Amino acid sequence: MGLNRRAAAIRAAYGDLRAQGRDPAALRFDAVSSPTQGRLEGRDVTLFGTNNYLGLTFDPVCVEAAADAARAWGAGTTGSRIANGSYGAHLMLEQEIAAFYARRGAVVFSTGYLANLGVISALAEKGDHLLIDADSHASIYDGCRLSDADTIRFRHNDPESLARRLARLEGTPGDKIIVVEGIYSMLGDAGRLREIAAVKREAGPDVYLLADEAHSLGVLGANGRGKAEADGVEADCDYVVGTFSKSVGSVGGFCVSDREELDALRSYSRPYMFTASMTPATVAGARAGFAQMQARPELRDRLWDNARRLYAALDALGFALGPEPSPVIAVQLADAAQAVALWNALIDAGLYTNVALPPATPNGISLLRVSVSAAHTPAEIDWAVEVFAAAGVAIGVLPLSAGASRAAGAA
Amino acid sequence: MGLNRRAAAIRAAYGDLRAQGRDPAALRFDAVSSPTQGRLEGRDVTLFGTNNYLGLTFDPVCVEAAADAARAWGAGTTGSRIANGSYGAHLMLEQEIAAFYARRGAVVFSTGYLANLGVISALAEKGDHLLIDADSHASIYDGCRLSDADTIRFRHNDPESLARRLARLEGTPGDKIIVVEGIYSMLGDAGRLREIAAVKREAGPDVYLLADEAHSLGVLGANGRGKAEADGVEADCDYVVGTFSKSVGSVGGFCVSDREELDALRSYSRPYMFTASMTPATVAGARAGFAQMQARPELRDRLWDNARRLYAALDALGFALGPEPSPVIAVQLADAAQAVALWNALIDAGLYTNVALPPATPNGISLLRVSVSAAHTPAEIDWAVEVFAAAGVAIGVLPLSAGASRAAGAA
Repeated sequence: MGLNRRAAAIRAAYGDLRAQGRDPAALRFDAVSSPTQGRLEGRDVTLFGTNNYLGLTFDPVCVEAAADAARAWGAGTTGSRIANGSYGAHLMLEQEIAAFYARRGAVVFSTGYLANLGVISALAEKGDHLLIDADSHASIYDGCRLSDADTIRFRHNDPESLARRLARLEGTPGDKIIVVEGIYSMLGDAGRLREIAAVKREAGPDVYLLADEAHSLGVLGANGRGKAEADGVEADCDYVVGTFSKSVGSVGGFCVSDREELDALRSYSRPYMFTASMTPATVAGARAGFAQMQARPELRDRLWDNARRLYAALDALGFALGPEPSPVIAVQLADAAQAVALWNALIDAGLYTNVALPPATPNGISLLRVSVSAAHTPAEIDWAVEVFAAAGVAIGVLPLSAGASRAAGAA
Repeated sequence: MGLNRRAAAIRAAYGDLRAQGRDPAALRFDAVSSPTQGRLEGRDVTLFGTNNYLGLTFDPVCVEAAADAARAWGAGTTGSRIANGSYGAHLMLEQEIAAFYARRGAVVFSTGYLANLGVISALAEKGDHLLIDADSHASIYDGCRLSDADTIRFRHNDPESLARRLARLEGTPGDKIIVVEGIYSMLGDAGRLREIAAVKREAGPDVYLLADEAHSLGVLGANGRGKAEADGVEADCDYVVGTFSKSVGSVGGFCVSDREELDALRSYSRPYMFTASMTPATVAGARAGFAQMQARPELRDRLWDNARRLYAALDALGFALGPEPSPVIAVQLADAAQAVALWNALIDAGLYTNVALPPATPNGISLLRVSVSAAHTPAEIDWAVEVFAAAGVAIGVLPLSAGASRAAGAA
């Protein structure tokens, strides 16, 4: 079966990872007891590799809301949204998201992946043009594949590259839909939405903009609406997609829009129509997390304090990081072997990060994706820096002096 | 935006449904208080339109397991299975499914739709051949679209049609993968797996068989493993896909197999790798539901008693039904208008069914999908028959005598 060959090729591309220690793609958390504490295959670890940006997964309000909903409404709906799977709570969640974004409507999907898949594949059809950032998430690429539209990649976060591709399409029939992200999940860099929106405006009225705020919801913007809010270009975003599985601490995805066709997703988008709906517990957890996110803006401040603190310290140590401070800090390594070695050394010291290797990363980079939560204490951030310094020296990523200078700086 | 045109075309194809009463694609359940009782837009209804075959959604064991898991493990994992989203419980669930099917391994996906999408798109690539039943579920069609393989449809449930298509491929390089279902969700007819398996065996060793037991898990077979078990052809099924959102009463999907490449899904299947994992509550609900399904085979007996009772009575009334008794009973109507009229009349009388219209149905049929649960009482089944008789006469689907003869029979 060809799948073995293809999977083997991916594994071969980054060496025999299992021989170096753990298999990054087959971890097992024996316990997770808080947003930042877990037990990974017998070892206690502090979590610096989640999408738990606001630390809401163990918020008592969210947890009790989920537990109560399971009791009141059952363990599952056993139906899709278009059959018996739309409960009052699903629609309340949609109304709450729409109100938060001050948009006419919202459509909720069962996962974030399904939201991108379901929105993109329904919006564009044969003859349309999808213009996507080259570093787009897999769900965006897969949404494009599921549509029959022409998919055109532009250089990552490069408005001029987008403008050139749009210029080439001038006069070509079909809708043109630009797809960008608020924060890119691997390098942690924010999408240049202000400049992208300007390009879109200039290109004319048959050009649409979809912003995926999966990693920026609750993270960026005065109200946490994401990068479009932070950049003041929400009016230019025809569609905003997001997820409940990151800052909101549950699972599910959504699309909000003022546009009339949003509602048409309910009778055209196959990933919406033919998937079982979110369980009552998941919906309740998402609603509570969403409400907590809005009620507690201090979580966002704490997240950014932590993010800036960790970014500055890792930068000072000499690690090659992503372009800007962010709750997602990409520590770039020379190659996959080095990334896996550092990842293992950190876990041995009790620090869990995500290791990301080609082909899941842009431009063949191997990196550790270090993510920060509002639930981290400053002491945990400082401890993580110590661990990074020691592990970096031990595996030869940092010069011998790095550990010493850091120790001196901390003293 | 073209989506409006496309969605409008679908709506236009079955008339202005909203004008007839409710919008089938935009219902709201204000309450669901048991597997069979709900409140639909202000009206109490008995549910005959779910996939709650064993009635496990309100099973106290399942509900408490979900509630406890939310408290112990949090409202969500905020991570994909290949990052921080594989908890001990996800892996236990996989082991339990593999053990149930007596297979080497199982891989769990976040929804059933994602399981078909992720398995089919990963198993087949350019140069391979997917041979699928023409009535396949949307998730199978979308899995084919997401792969670059050649997709070949054969006539619904027709082993000879499959054999002819396989014969045409003889000598063609590439894997050949047959995809069938245990029970087809719209007409409720069981897949002819015994005959399909025979065709597969005869076609040679480079032909594989995938059976989607979404609607037959917990429903068919001596142990509830599905149609392949019932037909004694499990050894011929290289892959079995299923879901937790029907008989198991939660959400999620899985694939089990003895084949080595199953594990390769974890490093190649994008819908597996790039979706947030099931929440702890969902996993716990699925594990409990799966255990209850195995521990209480009497639920399956009760389901079939109900299914046969309802099928026989609706058949006697003169409704045009699917080809055989099944927990999914398709009441076929002359056209979409008649289907929607009957569906509305039934709800007015307190009976909820699913209305299914083209293009979601095979061969342009308009039907009511009437589904039965082990949780229905015989009295509820008999009541449903009365309601069907009266509504059928009232809207002119049944002759005037049908209501009377039924009333006489019941007297």
